[in-house]
Amino acid sequence: MPYFDTASAAPLHPVARQALLAALDEGWADPARLHREGRRARLLLDAARQAAAEAVGCRPDELVFTPSGTHAVHLGVTGAVAGRRRAGRRVTVSAVEHSSVLHAAEAAGDLIEVPVDRGGRVLLDAFAGALTADTALAALQSANHEVGTEQPVAEAAVACRAAGVPLLVDAAQSLGWGPVAGDWSLLTASAHKWGGPSGVGLLAVRKGVRFAPRGPVDARESGRSPGFENLPAIVAAAASLRAVRAEAATEAARLRALVDRIRARVPALVPDTEVVGDPERRLPHLVTFSCLYVDGETLLHELDRAGFSVSSGSSCTSSTLTPSHVLTAMGVLSEGNIRLSLPPGTTADDVDRFLSVLPGVVTEVRERLGATGAATGAGADPEEADAAELVVDALGKLCPIPVIELAKVIGRVRVGGVVRVLADDEAARLDIPAWCEMRSQEYLGESSTPAGPSFTIRRTT
Amino acid sequence: MPYFDTASAAPLHPVARQALLAALDEGWADPARLHREGRRARLLLDAARQAAAEAVGCRPDELVFTPSGTHAVHLGVTGAVAGRRRAGRRVTVSAVEHSSVLHAAEAAGDLIEVPVDRGGRVLLDAFAGALTADTALAALQSANHEVGTEQPVAEAAVACRAAGVPLLVDAAQSLGWGPVAGDWSLLTASAHKWGGPSGVGLLAVRKGVRFAPRGPVDARESGRSPGFENLPAIVAAAASLRAVRAEAATEAARLRALVDRIRARVPALVPDTEVVGDPERRLPHLVTFSCLYVDGETLLHELDRAGFSVSSGSSCTSSTLTPSHVLTAMGVLSEGNIRLSLPPGTTADDVDRFLSVLPGVVTEVRERLGATGAATGAGADPEEADAAELVVDALGKLCPIPVIELAKVIGRVRVGGVVRVLADDEAARLDIPAWCEMRSQEYLGESSTPAGPSFTIRRTT
Repeated sequence: MPYFDTASAAPLHPVARQALLAALDEGWADPARLHREGRRARLLLDAARQAAAEAVGCRPDELVFTPSGTHAVHLGVTGAVAGRRRAGRRVTVSAVEHSSVLHAAEAAGDLIEVPVDRGGRVLLDAFAGALTADTALAALQSANHEVGTEQPVAEAAVACRAAGVPLLVDAAQSLGWGPVAGDWSLLTASAHKWGGPSGVGLLAVRKGVRFAPRGPVDARESGRSPGFENLPAIVAAAASLRAVRAEAATEAARLRALVDRIRARVPALVPDTEVVGDPERRLPHLVTFSCLYVDGETLLHELDRAGFSVSSGSSCTSSTLTPSHVLTAMGVLSEGNIRLSLPPGTTADDVDRFLSVLPGVVTEVRERLGATGAATGAGADPEEADAAELVVDALGKLCPIPVIELAKVIGRVRVGGVVRVLADDEAARLDIPAWCEMRSQEYLGESSTPAGPSFTIRRTT
Repeated sequence: MPYFDTASAAPLHPVARQALLAALDEGWADPARLHREGRRARLLLDAARQAAAEAVGCRPDELVFTPSGTHAVHLGVTGAVAGRRRAGRRVTVSAVEHSSVLHAAEAAGDLIEVPVDRGGRVLLDAFAGALTADTALAALQSANHEVGTEQPVAEAAVACRAAGVPLLVDAAQSLGWGPVAGDWSLLTASAHKWGGPSGVGLLAVRKGVRFAPRGPVDARESGRSPGFENLPAIVAAAASLRAVRAEAATEAARLRALVDRIRARVPALVPDTEVVGDPERRLPHLVTFSCLYVDGETLLHELDRAGFSVSSGSSCTSSTLTPSHVLTAMGVLSEGNIRLSLPPGTTADDVDRFLSVLPGVVTEVRERLGATGAATGAGADPEEADAAELVVDALGKLCPIPVIELAKVIGRVRVGGVVRVLADDEAARLDIPAWCEMRSQEYLGESSTPAGPSFTIRRTT
């Protein structure tokens, strides 16, 4: 049963499991104590820090362990912003950072989001231009967690250095594949993303970076991460990071070829599908696409029934009814969104089985939603195509219904005519323009009416 | 090799180990995901929450898991104080709370410390009297972590309820022995104190208690504890809490008898030793004593060499050179301090071996410090005992030297005469009065001189 959601949590690497078991026996005591059990725990902690620092590319005394990647980000952002209190409060980030970075920046200062291109890559000039004199911190992920796009971290670091602003790199998705290039100031990561255990994050703060830990005083981890060290998990995290790094080059090449196959085959097999994210500058194991006229949750459930575990950035699969902020920032379709993140060891056979199952699943969901005609362009009787303007009332209807309704009527206005879609689902704001882009129709914009938002589309073909 | 430091970290309970291993295979995925691995993780998380809530005595939706007991305290104190912002900023606590409580209270509001008696028990009337209209939160531990004294939590809860102030109970040391009695509002605990794994704390917040989580927004654990859940450790924590509770009554009775034996035998075997903490209202497995004319670090090392792992609240064993704030608040001796906290399964033979080794170790350390004469009262030639006043210059000398010097000269002043000890070691402020109490001499107080603090003692016997 292929598990294709390693970007959420990777299955435990065998080395992590072995190290964890060994450390349960040797590393349960308090490393701050002077007795033999405490000293043994301290030795394990020191060795794990040394190994993790080598993999990160920093000094051991620059690295602390945290209880999760989220904690690393929260502690890193708040500590760095507090350390630069005199400079100002602005925290400049790409618009596609992980929510933990966005929320930490909002809590610590004034969040400034820099746009990305349609591939999800931050606009470097805009990023550099946002590094004002009152910028306390900049943050840029090494690679995006939803679409796999690699960010220009080294170039951003040069711009940050020139502006005198520290750069925090969230390396959660990439650290298992290799160290982060460039002259970063702070780095965060999460062990369960590379096959380590849950319960361990990394926070590296380069010497010389101003850093003022916030929150209650605590002596653990150089005063930068409070609470009793989760030593067995830390030992397992460090051991597994070395192990996945040893396999990284081979595995990256293998998975990259499998993802290339998915990127090429999905649009060929499933009509009205968009593969999103940068096709070249990307993580080796991650690919995301969106399917028109399908809701992500149903798609996810049907794939789950067929034996494939995937995730989705569609609004209907989250508790917020808001589409992924990453897809929103990229301006790409969010409906019927599927992210595949392949764990090491994924075979070509796993991928081929997925490719053989996907078209049927999508077709079935589209049929159930009455969208087959819309998807194929049928249902548009050329003889009826004479209206100058049609209004579709999709108020109160959730993604993907507004887009399906739009697709159904577009053939009934003449070329040059317009369709107005009334829709209050948050996803419509993203998906209607994205549909226009995919179907080569012209999106004229959004206006507000007493009943709710109205989106206007001009038929061009 | 007996390990007597279970109050720092308990060895992993076999049930915790089994549960952890099982959950490594079943519970590594993200419980927020909809696929089968995610749903399986969610089931494990729900079951663990149900089990832990039963053991705590609260509803499952009142309980969240945190990465450590320290995190539970930090999140609980800051959230409760923020929730009561309109009432005021005062945080009323006993003076012997764990440092995590003191530091969280300092960070979240204005810390008000209520004194304890010489046994370490908070003065209940003073505690109730400190619950002013502008008190946001009160905190009282269920039992003290350094001396084992149980606190009057149920009575304090009544006083808090009458004053309309929520009570947070730090139950880190006692939760394995049983639920906390009384009408508390918030409760915190730490799994590795009861034989669970490191990486798990508990925070319970009763329905109706005003609570406003601080820090960056995060959806995990009802928005009260950020970061990816450490599920295998959570499962192991819940399973082991049930397991230790099943054994608690039997094990408590057995260990209580062993501790009674230590409490009775240590003063008989080792002269000039004080057993501290409440002799009756105490944890079953924990006992603390202090030995005059010995430094804690050397004692700890010698016991370690003899095969016994213990801890110490003496100043010289910490990096701060400050004696334990618990011993300071109690006004008891801090030099030569040893805490024994017996893990389940400790045998009478383990304890007897300790009792057979301790006297020799203390005597040897005293001899090395030239304190044997002082300890026995020898070296005081009655014919010389005619001075009305003597001054001892112990400036720059660390614990226990100032007390040893005092003991050496007290016999050389006449009864009614005084000794002045110049000493700038922080521990002298605690240990000189404690020595007077133990040796029935009169402590006249401290004054400041240009050279440093001066302590005055009148010889009475």
